[in-house]
Amino acid sequence: MNFKNSMSYDRLDIISVKNKIDRYLINTPVLRFDFVDSLCNCEVFFKCENFQHTGSFKYRAALNAIKSIPDSYKKRGVITHSSGNFAHALSRAASELNISCYIVMPSNTPDFKKMSVLKYTENIIECKPTLEAREHMTKKVMRENNLFFLHPSNNMDVILGNSTCAFEFFEENQNLDYIFSPVGGGGLIAGTCIAMNHFSKNFRVIGAEPSNVDDAYRSLISGKIETNKSTNTIADGLRTNLGSINFPIIQKHVKEILLVSEEEIMNSLNIILNQLKLVVEPSSAVVLAALIKNRDNFKNKKIGLIMCGGNIDFNSLKF
Amino acid sequence: MNFKNSMSYDRLDIISVKNKIDRYLINTPVLRFDFVDSLCNCEVFFKCENFQHTGSFKYRAALNAIKSIPDSYKKRGVITHSSGNFAHALSRAASELNISCYIVMPSNTPDFKKMSVLKYTENIIECKPTLEAREHMTKKVMRENNLFFLHPSNNMDVILGNSTCAFEFFEENQNLDYIFSPVGGGGLIAGTCIAMNHFSKNFRVIGAEPSNVDDAYRSLISGKIETNKSTNTIADGLRTNLGSINFPIIQKHVKEILLVSEEEIMNSLNIILNQLKLVVEPSSAVVLAALIKNRDNFKNKKIGLIMCGGNIDFNSLKF
Repeated sequence: MNFKNSMSYDRLDIISVKNKIDRYLINTPVLRFDFVDSLCNCEVFFKCENFQHTGSFKYRAALNAIKSIPDSYKKRGVITHSSGNFAHALSRAASELNISCYIVMPSNTPDFKKMSVLKYTENIIECKPTLEAREHMTKKVMRENNLFFLHPSNNMDVILGNSTCAFEFFEENQNLDYIFSPVGGGGLIAGTCIAMNHFSKNFRVIGAEPSNVDDAYRSLISGKIETNKSTNTIADGLRTNLGSINFPIIQKHVKEILLVSEEEIMNSLNIILNQLKLVVEPSSAVVLAALIKNRDNFKNKKIGLIMCGGNIDFNSLKF
Repeated sequence: MNFKNSMSYDRLDIISVKNKIDRYLINTPVLRFDFVDSLCNCEVFFKCENFQHTGSFKYRAALNAIKSIPDSYKKRGVITHSSGNFAHALSRAASELNISCYIVMPSNTPDFKKMSVLKYTENIIECKPTLEAREHMTKKVMRENNLFFLHPSNNMDVILGNSTCAFEFFEENQNLDYIFSPVGGGGLIAGTCIAMNHFSKNFRVIGAEPSNVDDAYRSLISGKIETNKSTNTIADGLRTNLGSINFPIIQKHVKEILLVSEEEIMNSLNIILNQLKLVVEPSSAVVLAALIKNRDNFKNKKIGLIMCGGNIDFNSLKF
């Protein structure tokens, strides 16, 4: 399969994507919490991708992307640049499928993230912590080893892999009115839109984004891809910008992106860890924060929240 | 109902206990984790009482106990001594049922535990951090206010309340070969035995206990209630001793108690938090530690693990 045209997903059978990667995935549980239902006056369903292999939805993306590369590259390997969940996910997916995997990581990547990748591949290449250095180093290593490059979010196979999350969610909960997805690089929310489009027009996808990195919010208003001037948010998974492949999908299907402050994210994280007893990373807390902030607009509705991941360093936490 | 004779449970209909408190409870989810199945070469089912109201199974105990006190006391109130989950659970159950609740707490109780109780009652009475001081203060306040005393574990209504946990567990997973329960005061494992006895003789209850507070292990061998000389374990919920009501039940039904070291508890806690992404307290980690240590004896079996609670202070964690 080849999806050069980002809008061609309408014709795709996402069930075939699901079938392709299903046996490697955990069909993650959907949990309910009375505490949140009472707090928000609605029925809230948590899709727990923090329980997915490698601790995030990115494993779906990595699996589908790596299974979709041309056969000739399967012998040579893949490369990505990521300091976080996509690096972890791709290294495991590659290891599972016996494909070589190279990860370009900024030198300031926390040790616990590096350790997660080292379990599956020794090919970690450090670079200076700038976007330019990342891209330069990735191109260099890619050319030297003739590798296939996989972008963490702006890649149609990545997006289709992500769509299996909302696919499962909706299969189990046919009556959802809304699904809230965090917005970082845009891969998860675009995949969620594709699943929504496949199943029904009756539920809506809502984006949730930190105010400090509100590129998607501004992009929807201006109609072109805006970038973030700073990456100053605790939600480390959401610091990246939208891309040319996922933005048109988001633009077509997402009517609303809700912004939340750092304090609101921390309060939500505190609730999830200390009241709900789920280990999630701050990016997951962003969607609950958005619901709590706007709860008056969602009274008595059925809300699905995607807990996108659970990779958090406890030693860095201070409440 | 009045259960003065601790062995009379054989004739009890525990379904009536379940019906009495069911509407106040969360039927907590049972989760599976591929990671643990692979690690232990068996099928492991996690009953997540960390998701129960007040973050532990103790809410079952507190509800049933407080609903079983004589009517005349319902106007005056109840009292217990506890620094932990029973204090939290009883104060909420009392608040739910509009009954006054007094909690005697050692002066060295961590702030986060005190805060949990203060949400539901202002009647916290501090005492010196010794068992004698606790008991003395409890008696004093009880007499002064004519209150009904509820022991956190050595009380038949507490034990019957706890039995609803294994009841739900077994209702959902009829084919379990073993249920692992932590052993502290003995209330949870005794309740688990009662549920087992009600349902079937085909599955066995295994106790899990920290080596540093191995009173139950030694009691099973000697045939009488042994006490702990120190309370030096991270599993703060398991520092207490067995009692005269739960011990005969445990003696009759539990054939094996598995001991684990502090290091094994920490490793297991690390797995649960960082791999499984569940927030549990160290007492919950004790059962997984016992399974991991003895996994060769449980190959291909279906194992139920009770995650007894999730009240942990993240600020105190260091991995």
